[in-house]
Amino acid sequence: MSTVRLLADDELSAEARAVFDDIRATRKTDFVNNIWRALAHDPALLRRTWEGVKEVMAPGALDPLTKELIYIAVSIANGCEYCVRSHTAGARAKGMSEAQLMELVAVVGMASETNRLAIGLQVPVDEAFKRTP
Amino acid sequence: MSTVRLLADDELSAEARAVFDDIRATRKTDFVNNIWRALAHDPALLRRTWEGVKEVMAPGALDPLTKELIYIAVSIANGCEYCVRSHTAGARAKGMSEAQLMELVAVVGMASETNRLAIGLQVPVDEAFKRTP
Amino acid sequence: MSTVRLLADDELSAEARAVFDDIRATRKTDFVNNIWRALAHDPALLRRTWEGVKEVMAPGALDPLTKELIYIAVSIANGCEYCVRSHTAGARAKGMSEAQLMELVAVVGMASETNRLAIGLQVPVDEAFKRTP
Amino acid sequence: MSTVRLLADDELSAEARAVFDDIRATRKTDFVNNIWRALAHDPALLRRTWEGVKEVMAPGALDPLTKELIYIAVSIANGCEYCVRSHTAGARAKGMSEAQLMELVAVVGMASETNRLAIGLQVPVDEAFKRTP
Amino acid sequence: MSTVRLLADDELSAEARAVFDDIRATRKTDFVNNIWRALAHDPALLRRTWEGVKEVMAPGALDPLTKELIYIAVSIANGCEYCVRSHTAGARAKGMSEAQLMELVAVVGMASETNRLAIGLQVPVDEAFKRTP
Amino acid sequence: MSTVRLLADDELSAEARAVFDDIRATRKTDFVNNIWRALAHDPALLRRTWEGVKEVMAPGALDPLTKELIYIAVSIANGCEYCVRSHTAGARAKGMSEAQLMELVAVVGMASETNRLAIGLQVPVDEAFKRTP
Repeated sequence: MSTVRLLADDELSAEARAVFDDIRATRKTDFVNNIWRALAHDPALLRRTWEGVKEVMAPGALDPLTKELIYIAVSIANGCEYCVRSHTAGARAKGMSEAQLMELVAVVGMASETNRLAIGLQVPVDEAFKRTP
Repeated sequence: MSTVRLLADDELSAEARAVFDDIRATRKTDFVNNIWRALAHDPALLRRTWEGVKEVMAPGALDPLTKELIYIAVSIANGCEYCVRSHTAGARAKGMSEAQLMELVAVVGMASETNRLAIGLQVPVDEAFKRTP
Repeated sequence: MSTVRLLADDELSAEARAVFDDIRATRKTDFVNNIWRALAHDPALLRRTWEGVKEVMAPGALDPLTKELIYIAVSIANGCEYCVRSHTAGARAKGMSEAQLMELVAVVGMASETNRLAIGLQVPVDEAFKRTP
Repeated sequence: MSTVRLLADDELSAEARAVFDDIRATRKTDFVNNIWRALAHDPALLRRTWEGVKEVMAPGALDPLTKELIYIAVSIANGCEYCVRSHTAGARAKGMSEAQLMELVAVVGMASETNRLAIGLQVPVDEAFKRTP
Repeated sequence: MSTVRLLADDELSAEARAVFDDIRATRKTDFVNNIWRALAHDPALLRRTWEGVKEVMAPGALDPLTKELIYIAVSIANGCEYCVRSHTAGARAKGMSEAQLMELVAVVGMASETNRLAIGLQVPVDEAFKRTP
Repeated sequence: MSTVRLLADDELSAEARAVFDDIRATRKTDFVNNIWRALAHDPALLRRTWEGVKEVMAPGALDPLTKELIYIAVSIANGCEYCVRSHTAGARAKGMSEAQLMELVAVVGMASETNRLAIGLQVPVDEAFKRTP
């Protein structure tokens, strides 16, 4: 149960409906997942979030699958079950293999370990790492 | 200043020295950065961490640059300055362009935003995302 | 299932019972929620936590609803489902509208995004922000 | 030192310059702080972030000072020094008193404590908190 | 439901089976809990994680129960339900009393509160705390 | 620079002075570190925090050094430099050896790694870990 009601299609405002139409057209599926149905209570937030995600996750200097892997990594570090599950499904739909998923979580785990070691001992940044290109 | 002294090469135990030798041989450089000099107080921890990093970051189902990007993403989410700076330098050495870095932080920022939206409204996981292949 | 039993009213020590009495008197309701029933195993912790919450959340330079909004924001950032749900219910009881809740999560999301951008690029603090009044 | 150079006004692309113009016009000051000078390497990210912040922080169901307090609270929980300092300065410019700042951090501290108590004992959500209005 | 299938004993690779055998021999029980059944998809990750945990949690300068308490504390701060529950069970098996558990969560809560106070006000580190022995 | 001024002894309110007197008497030293000088702007917060810390960190079912180790572990996980440094100094004053410090950070690192593995693969809690004594 979310803390606001998940809106059904026939409960959407005109602005929210337009965003749902774009989600369906962009993803080529009728399925609109729960996060958008919660955000639809605030059409400006819904629109801004959807357009931001669409822009950020589009092909660019990084390919879409790499971006999904990064998205999952952050979601793990932030402890968001909804996001881990939805983006793991999304990455699989984009071709992520099980071996890639296992390596992804291995890197996330290793990074989390060394992050804590560096903070735990308050290791100072090497001069070599302070230069800005 | 770290909370333990950073060990110079001539202060290393035999076991720590062997790890430093492997770091230098693997990376083909004489430079050994501060985190290893802090961990060297506990040779077992030093060895395990280095061997773990070497194994996890090797080419596999994911290429080494993708793994560096994931490492940076996690380090940002965990708020580790040392790790953000050292792995940003590492990723650049492996060919990361500035455009790729900017897209990486854009994905990390966007994921952090939607993570909080999903948690903030306690959005339930869609049935479609619960299936295990 | 909590990792310690939730204590029923007839299982309370005298010190825990006194705290429950004060919770009921302060909130003008017989309902005592689960967190207090878990903390009741350690009456000193129960008392200190309840008195701290009562003192901190009382009207002061900030009004009680603003304090609830801040409480929810922190609970989202810390990923605490229990606290998000209980304080969202508490804020609603104090008059929070759905529009206010949606704006709250929007601010939490936006702050989380820019937090990660600033950390991700290691942006130095402007001199103008370093002055202490 | 940031990991990308902070761009001076005469290094901006046309799209970035347009965003800087809007920042200056909106805030009625010539000062543009460092985060925007780092984001300017990616004009699309710069524009999206600025427009998002402007939209989210505008007066609405919550007033701008309350939104700044929430922004600071999240920045504390996420451990972002840049954001704590810049938004503390921003809140002061909007009238936050020192007493309000002290109460803000007191609420953040208390929420963080009870968040951990609830997670630490895995306290189940009360039925009364599970209802969606 | 995990995002990868939990492997049953008869689905293990030879390398994963060897790790399971060592888990059973070390713990003197036939029970192998779910995390290992998920990691078994990547035998190298399974082996490295198990050997790391076994080495780190062994008696040393700190006794095993103290290490379990630290493990639980970190798991609470990172918001990992699986880890809080499994290590609380593990600590009880090693003799942790309910009074010790309550004091543990009290310390975790108090530390989280003062962590946020120090970050919230950006308190500078005292010179006395900067010395490295 | 903190975001509020650090108060000198001759700037304290009567209530804050009484707390400083108790800090000095309890710790048997004239030195009062910066966090208390920042909190002194809000005497009620100062008093509540000091009394909470004093109560929680006193000998009980856990000894004071074990509590300091847990405090450091949480401070690492929360990324609080002030707290890591001040409590590392505090633990050393209570007898923590360098070997104990190294094992502490090793456990914190390992726990952080497995926390992320469990979250990353969404491993379900084993039935055996769900029982409440």
